[in-house]
Amino acid sequence: MNFVLGIDGGGTSCRAALATADGVVLARSVSGAANIRTDLTGARNNIVEAARLAFVEAGHDPALMAVTPAILGLAGANVGTYAQQLEAILPFAASRVESDAGIALEGAVGPGDGAIAVLGTGTAYMARKNGKARAIGGWGFQVGDQGSGARIGRDLLEQTLLAHDGVREGSPLTQAMLAVFRYNPQDVVEFTTRAVPGDFGGFAPKVFEYAADGDAVALWIIDKAVADVEAALAALNLVSQDPLCLLGGLAPLYAPRLSERHRAMLRPALDDALGGAVRMAMRLFTQIAEQAR
Amino acid sequence: MNFVLGIDGGGTSCRAALATADGVVLARSVSGAANIRTDLTGARNNIVEAARLAFVEAGHDPALMAVTPAILGLAGANVGTYAQQLEAILPFAASRVESDAGIALEGAVGPGDGAIAVLGTGTAYMARKNGKARAIGGWGFQVGDQGSGARIGRDLLEQTLLAHDGVREGSPLTQAMLAVFRYNPQDVVEFTTRAVPGDFGGFAPKVFEYAADGDAVALWIIDKAVADVEAALAALNLVSQDPLCLLGGLAPLYAPRLSERHRAMLRPALDDALGGAVRMAMRLFTQIAEQAR
Repeated sequence: MNFVLGIDGGGTSCRAALATADGVVLARSVSGAANIRTDLTGARNNIVEAARLAFVEAGHDPALMAVTPAILGLAGANVGTYAQQLEAILPFAASRVESDAGIALEGAVGPGDGAIAVLGTGTAYMARKNGKARAIGGWGFQVGDQGSGARIGRDLLEQTLLAHDGVREGSPLTQAMLAVFRYNPQDVVEFTTRAVPGDFGGFAPKVFEYAADGDAVALWIIDKAVADVEAALAALNLVSQDPLCLLGGLAPLYAPRLSERHRAMLRPALDDALGGAVRMAMRLFTQIAEQAR
Repeated sequence: MNFVLGIDGGGTSCRAALATADGVVLARSVSGAANIRTDLTGARNNIVEAARLAFVEAGHDPALMAVTPAILGLAGANVGTYAQQLEAILPFAASRVESDAGIALEGAVGPGDGAIAVLGTGTAYMARKNGKARAIGGWGFQVGDQGSGARIGRDLLEQTLLAHDGVREGSPLTQAMLAVFRYNPQDVVEFTTRAVPGDFGGFAPKVFEYAADGDAVALWIIDKAVADVEAALAALNLVSQDPLCLLGGLAPLYAPRLSERHRAMLRPALDDALGGAVRMAMRLFTQIAEQAR
């Protein structure tokens, strides 16, 4: 029997799926973080461990990974030469490193044209037009990721401090936030000096919730975030028949707030990112088989 | 002869001025950082060293500091109990810790009503109305400091990445910025992961410069920054006869862009922050002398 491996690795864990060469998934597995930018060797080890666990789980000899092609979707794969370095040290029959958005796009819309918007702690977009993929956004919390949970949370803290100073009108939401920080703006500042994007993002659902109740500050923040997401979608130059999938934790909160044009394009994702990696691995297997003939 | 000490301490250096009790400055001196939040003991040592140097420079015995009252204006003095802790371990006849904005306000407008706007790497505001001082802003780069050099620089990098992605129209300024980062958005992101506020702020004068030439992105950023500064000034509830002093490196760039109402209130600062500390120390000396009588 011939196998293929799909790998989906990120900063907190690495998932693997072992499938037959015609795409029947036999086993899924999880190992530790696979951050190729901060720890290439550690990432390699967790990738191999996830693959090994998938073979074991499926009841096959892990030594077969040496004759199994793998597609790896990894955060940070489009930065520098980390992807090429990793490909050189992996034990699979063939290894191709894609961006995390790349396997997510394949999973969500399949091999045809279409687009994904990843709306979570960060934001990123990828569209495929006439077979050619293009990614935008995803530049991180500090100067990018407009509309992300992290940016919405950061905006909320900023508007809360402005309300505290009397520079802008407050609202039930800014009052609730001041209460969280014991009515002490210094506590807000202390929080922000240590907070990572996920810490800011933790406040985002609360902002959507208050916006639904008509809170003026929440609406101001969410309207800006929706406008930012719309602007990014517009830059993808989609046509109305392109399928558009919203992914990430904020996807269900954004979906009803998008423009009519973009709402009409929304489709449920066909599969998750790991499924996308498996599908790409099947194509890689076919290529290798054809080259061998 | 009776002396008073004015101290102006911050994260990079500590300045001291020794003056006679009627305000004639005899010597000024500089020592190392006085950051009471991160290193209280180190701050205390540099404060005492600055005072010692001022006595030596003036040709007087530094042991006289034990009978000399001091006003200290220190960044972070309004946070937690650092100020009280410091006052307890200083060797002066009497020590009173004020915020850095407090001594700057005293220096700029004297003991009467008036306001300062500190427009530099960060932004902060302080107004005195009917003898009562009120500070707003100064909450730092992450969720505050609207209109600061750091925020303007951060906005520039954000708009540059949006222009790179085709989400917004570019301009000569965003082109120039992309060239700085070798047309590689990843280099921008790398920069932002390490950059401190001053690093972002380094780009601010360039934004003002391009705005003066009509660059669309620069104008968009500066118009937003000016609106933020105007909103903060409006929250101070100044009346037209109140003197308003703009301080900080961006003051001359902002002055011509403010509303007519606020431009009409602008006055040159009477003295710098250290001069303000000396003036407050003179009042402290008089209080102590009256109590002793």
